[in-house]
Amino acid sequence: MAEVERVKTGVIGLDSKIEGGFVRGSVNLITGKTGTGKTSFCCSFLYQGAKEGEPGLYITTEQRVEDIKNDIKAMFGWDFDKLEKKKLIKLVSIKPIFPNKDIEDINRLIRLYILNFLSQIEKNIKEIKAKRVVVDSVSIIEMFIKDEYISRVALSSLTEKLRELGVTSLLTGTIPEASESLSGGGIIEYIVDTVIKLDFVPVAEEYKRTLNVRKMRRTNHSTMIHPFTVTKEGMKIIEL
Amino acid sequence: MAEVERVKTGVIGLDSKIEGGFVRGSVNLITGKTGTGKTSFCCSFLYQGAKEGEPGLYITTEQRVEDIKNDIKAMFGWDFDKLEKKKLIKLVSIKPIFPNKDIEDINRLIRLYILNFLSQIEKNIKEIKAKRVVVDSVSIIEMFIKDEYISRVALSSLTEKLRELGVTSLLTGTIPEASESLSGGGIIEYIVDTVIKLDFVPVAEEYKRTLNVRKMRRTNHSTMIHPFTVTKEGMKIIEL
Amino acid sequence: MAEVERVKTGVIGLDSKIEGGFVRGSVNLITGKTGTGKTSFCCSFLYQGAKEGEPGLYITTEQRVEDIKNDIKAMFGWDFDKLEKKKLIKLVSIKPIFPNKDIEDINRLIRLYILNFLSQIEKNIKEIKAKRVVVDSVSIIEMFIKDEYISRVALSSLTEKLRELGVTSLLTGTIPEASESLSGGGIIEYIVDTVIKLDFVPVAEEYKRTLNVRKMRRTNHSTMIHPFTVTKEGMKIIEL
Amino acid sequence: MAEVERVKTGVIGLDSKIEGGFVRGSVNLITGKTGTGKTSFCCSFLYQGAKEGEPGLYITTEQRVEDIKNDIKAMFGWDFDKLEKKKLIKLVSIKPIFPNKDIEDINRLIRLYILNFLSQIEKNIKEIKAKRVVVDSVSIIEMFIKDEYISRVALSSLTEKLRELGVTSLLTGTIPEASESLSGGGIIEYIVDTVIKLDFVPVAEEYKRTLNVRKMRRTNHSTMIHPFTVTKEGMKIIEL
Amino acid sequence: MAEVERVKTGVIGLDSKIEGGFVRGSVNLITGKTGTGKTSFCCSFLYQGAKEGEPGLYITTEQRVEDIKNDIKAMFGWDFDKLEKKKLIKLVSIKPIFPNKDIEDINRLIRLYILNFLSQIEKNIKEIKAKRVVVDSVSIIEMFIKDEYISRVALSSLTEKLRELGVTSLLTGTIPEASESLSGGGIIEYIVDTVIKLDFVPVAEEYKRTLNVRKMRRTNHSTMIHPFTVTKEGMKIIEL
Amino acid sequence: MAEVERVKTGVIGLDSKIEGGFVRGSVNLITGKTGTGKTSFCCSFLYQGAKEGEPGLYITTEQRVEDIKNDIKAMFGWDFDKLEKKKLIKLVSIKPIFPNKDIEDINRLIRLYILNFLSQIEKNIKEIKAKRVVVDSVSIIEMFIKDEYISRVALSSLTEKLRELGVTSLLTGTIPEASESLSGGGIIEYIVDTVIKLDFVPVAEEYKRTLNVRKMRRTNHSTMIHPFTVTKEGMKIIEL
Repeated sequence: MAEVERVKTGVIGLDSKIEGGFVRGSVNLITGKTGTGKTSFCCSFLYQGAKEGEPGLYITTEQRVEDIKNDIKAMFGWDFDKLEKKKLIKLVSIKPIFPNKDIEDINRLIRLYILNFLSQIEKNIKEIKAKRVVVDSVSIIEMFIKDEYISRVALSSLTEKLRELGVTSLLTGTIPEASESLSGGGIIEYIVDTVIKLDFVPVAEEYKRTLNVRKMRRTNHSTMIHPFTVTKEGMKIIEL
Repeated sequence: MAEVERVKTGVIGLDSKIEGGFVRGSVNLITGKTGTGKTSFCCSFLYQGAKEGEPGLYITTEQRVEDIKNDIKAMFGWDFDKLEKKKLIKLVSIKPIFPNKDIEDINRLIRLYILNFLSQIEKNIKEIKAKRVVVDSVSIIEMFIKDEYISRVALSSLTEKLRELGVTSLLTGTIPEASESLSGGGIIEYIVDTVIKLDFVPVAEEYKRTLNVRKMRRTNHSTMIHPFTVTKEGMKIIEL
Repeated sequence: MAEVERVKTGVIGLDSKIEGGFVRGSVNLITGKTGTGKTSFCCSFLYQGAKEGEPGLYITTEQRVEDIKNDIKAMFGWDFDKLEKKKLIKLVSIKPIFPNKDIEDINRLIRLYILNFLSQIEKNIKEIKAKRVVVDSVSIIEMFIKDEYISRVALSSLTEKLRELGVTSLLTGTIPEASESLSGGGIIEYIVDTVIKLDFVPVAEEYKRTLNVRKMRRTNHSTMIHPFTVTKEGMKIIEL
Repeated sequence: MAEVERVKTGVIGLDSKIEGGFVRGSVNLITGKTGTGKTSFCCSFLYQGAKEGEPGLYITTEQRVEDIKNDIKAMFGWDFDKLEKKKLIKLVSIKPIFPNKDIEDINRLIRLYILNFLSQIEKNIKEIKAKRVVVDSVSIIEMFIKDEYISRVALSSLTEKLRELGVTSLLTGTIPEASESLSGGGIIEYIVDTVIKLDFVPVAEEYKRTLNVRKMRRTNHSTMIHPFTVTKEGMKIIEL
Repeated sequence: MAEVERVKTGVIGLDSKIEGGFVRGSVNLITGKTGTGKTSFCCSFLYQGAKEGEPGLYITTEQRVEDIKNDIKAMFGWDFDKLEKKKLIKLVSIKPIFPNKDIEDINRLIRLYILNFLSQIEKNIKEIKAKRVVVDSVSIIEMFIKDEYISRVALSSLTEKLRELGVTSLLTGTIPEASESLSGGGIIEYIVDTVIKLDFVPVAEEYKRTLNVRKMRRTNHSTMIHPFTVTKEGMKIIEL
Repeated sequence: MAEVERVKTGVIGLDSKIEGGFVRGSVNLITGKTGTGKTSFCCSFLYQGAKEGEPGLYITTEQRVEDIKNDIKAMFGWDFDKLEKKKLIKLVSIKPIFPNKDIEDINRLIRLYILNFLSQIEKNIKEIKAKRVVVDSVSIIEMFIKDEYISRVALSSLTEKLRELGVTSLLTGTIPEASESLSGGGIIEYIVDTVIKLDFVPVAEEYKRTLNVRKMRRTNHSTMIHPFTVTKEGMKIIEL
């Protein structure tokens, strides 16, 4: 049987549930409703890399770089500024903008939008020789492209590019509050190697956080719904 | 670990559930169906500021300034007129208007609409040197902009502006009666630091009021569903 | 604490649940599915006014004036014809019409439609010096205006006008049979002071009528689901 | 209290649940999913009239006149051919047709369609001096007119015309199989005096037929869910 | 009471539940999700006719003629090739095609499509002097015509034609997997004489097949949910 | 009774539930949500063929050929590279592309798209004299074609082509996460011979994998919901 190289997730207790970690070079979706811990997961992943000397790139389309650093410092005490100076972490904000309506052809506009997005990712990966990449989140692409087929093509070109560049990557998706879906657009889950779903489950008068590996290629993964907690050491699976 | 400065919420019993209050400079969403107490929450927040000498600005797109003052006086006995004279409170009404159809390009119309809205907020913040701001509500923006992507960009420009100005702000959202969502448009919850959901829960033949902190960045917050009551002293969490 | 002047509802047993009645000058929504008793509520409200010498105006967009008078006479024995002669009641029918397609601009068409509606209300209020007004129902406006934002602006101009004129008013809304919403358009509930929901609740092989005060500004109102009955004396809350 | 003249429904056991029958001159909706007995109800109503010497008109947009006569003969043994010769019954088929696309203005097309429909009804009513009228069904009008507001205006003009002509009328509506609504378009129920809902309720391995008076103006009606059966003597409420 | 001539269904045990069979000359809908046995029902109906010397026509818009013959042979051992040579059965495939976009007027296109469909049915009926006809399925017509009103008119012209030609016919409808409706378009059920619904009901870890007569004109039919099985002798109702 | 030739599925324990395997020459749909094992099923099917000396073609529109080979090697230890050299397996990737907007007529564009897709399939089948074919997945076609009727025609032309070429084929469909349907478009299930649904069923805190044969022509198939597991020997039905 083939050897599959694994990359530690950085989430305490998760690696043992998925044969040792993410498959090296794979594209993995971390999805969940707002406030379920997607950003914490992604930062744990990059911090794990930094500890092992693997440079990591964080692309955010949602927040300001300063805010993420401050959040992480407040929650876990991790100093991303210091890691950035050591070239072990790089955070980049790619903000969505009002589309330029001078370009009339919507398909051409989308192509330019995606190409620009991919070239920024590629440039930054090469700059720090990143081995790990986070794209937080892909939902902005899903909002920008209304057509299901075009969205499929565009998201595929993103996953292809990440695979080509040989990095192990996390994409975050957002599940609308009232939905049972796996992403806003319902497409990205088909073209990634892994789907990990974070959730908020009401138990009596309280909400509990849970993690479920919905799919993972090349991996005989846990199919349990794992409760987890966010500790000062990072996200941590609660063993039952 | 980093120090996080906290701002008292003004809701009795809430601060102890969220590490002392809102994060200074954060943007926080108070959301719920009609009649669940969003305006009471916001007024408690500004009144708390006034007591501490922090000027507060109330932007309403929903009601008349006089009506809010009268509601608050009737419910809590707080005299916002007096506080307004002391420059500790300012209430401003920004009413939605019929769009000017002379401007044909819908994207340009939206940009003007948002820019005008932001500049009014900024002008008023500077005028009273506000430290606390309420925008009640953002749902009118969600209604005005039909496109999900454009709505995302516009709401982001609002939260960015509030962060830039250094104020601690509350936005109110409205949840349609028959919905399980967190806002009318399903977007604002992703770009704020905090989501507090107020609800009406049927228990036997009665409706009980509840408050749940759905997410809060940099904060190890309660995930309980807290019953609350509206007393003459303000909103108050009922300890179980 | 501020004094709030109250206006008796005319529904037997309701005033004690809402601190004495509607707030003088407020705009109140009575909503429910077809056949739940909205018209009975409104007529009770106007009849109460007439008994106290307060002239009341009934605007109907749904029924013929004669039919309402006959319904009321058959159900409660109240003679609205006699009250109309005493200038204590006036019933006016404003029927929806096929839109004039000569006016191309849909926004202008809507503005004219609303202005015409408001001016008819104002003229009639002034004519009988009405203190109480019923608009039965606002759902026709919701049907006429498809755009959510424009609908919000138009319904606001109606509530503003009623507040300006100093009358205490009831608007009726209609809840589609298969819906859990509070109105057909999902907007009017946000811009009124009060939402009272009438319902039909299946209990075993029978339907029971219930009334619930969903929100009421300036008022520490009951949050119970009250069963009610329609008696020869008018609508009546059943005490449990 | 006012006297309300009643018209016997022809359904065995129903009159005693609704103060003696339909209000003379009223417009009444009989609604239900396919196969729940709407046509049987309508034929019972006209047969009752014929027995009392009141001529009745049956407008069908759904079936062939011959098929209705044969159905009625097979189910109840009633000879509508004979009654038609005595001018006590008249059945008329108004079949929907492909719209004439030479008329470009959709509003004008609808006006012509409705006017033509109403003038056929009026002509036939006058011809046999009908006192009772059945329009089976109004769902074809709901399908023809997509706009909710225009549909409301058109259906109102139908109910107004029937009231003007002084007849007591039944309209049938159709409830889509998977729906909890009261009609296909969700509008007609608001502008009629009565809504009677026929249903198919699964009880263990069988479906039971039920009848519920959902609303009835001027009438203190039963709110029970009544099981009924179709016997050789006509539809019959089962007393519990 | 009128005599109603009956046509045996060919489904073992069904005739006794519906007063002897289908009404001669009626149009009957056999509907259900994919794989529930609609084709088996239709073939049983035609095979029964062939045994009685009544020629039967099978119009398929779904499958190849050869495949149906092979399916039937494998399931029941019935040799439709032999019956076709005896002119007792004829199978005809009318495949849907890409619409010809040279005809711009969509209404005209639909009229031609339907006219062509009807003339093929009529020609084939006359050729073998068919007494029984199956149209499997009408869902392709529902897909082709998007407008609900036009769909209603088109499907009516099909049922009218079949009634004119005096044949007893079965139409098959398809219920989408996730739906509680009676057909894809929600229209055909209103214009047929009979609706028989086939279903797949989960019972513990297994799916059971069931048959329910949802409506049947001129017939005091069973309203039970009957389990059935597919045996080598044909479809068979399981007596409870 | 006719002899039906069977083709072994390659899934351990499945053949005995479906009279020996798929019908030779049939078109079979394997459908399920993301991560339920569709690709594993398809690879087991081709591997079974290879073991019996039947060449198999794998068309993927979802993944890279290298990734599928690696997945299979990691999960089952099967060496598809070696089988490809022996001409017993061929994997071909047909990636979706941005549509060429120079072709204005959408119907013509679709025809070209489908024709190109079919000709690639045919060419590859002939090249290795394939007896078994996998098309993974058809959902990209469903996304590309918005019109239900055109989608029906296009998917039919695919199944017709596969039947003409005499191969036994598997198509994979994708069920959206929040859906109870059998495919994204709701059409393909009607035009295939078999529907096998793979699912993820929550049992307490875990998800179990299940397989259900939803329909299978010419076959008296199991209607049980079978749990299955993915072992190093391939997919395997768990006997209860």
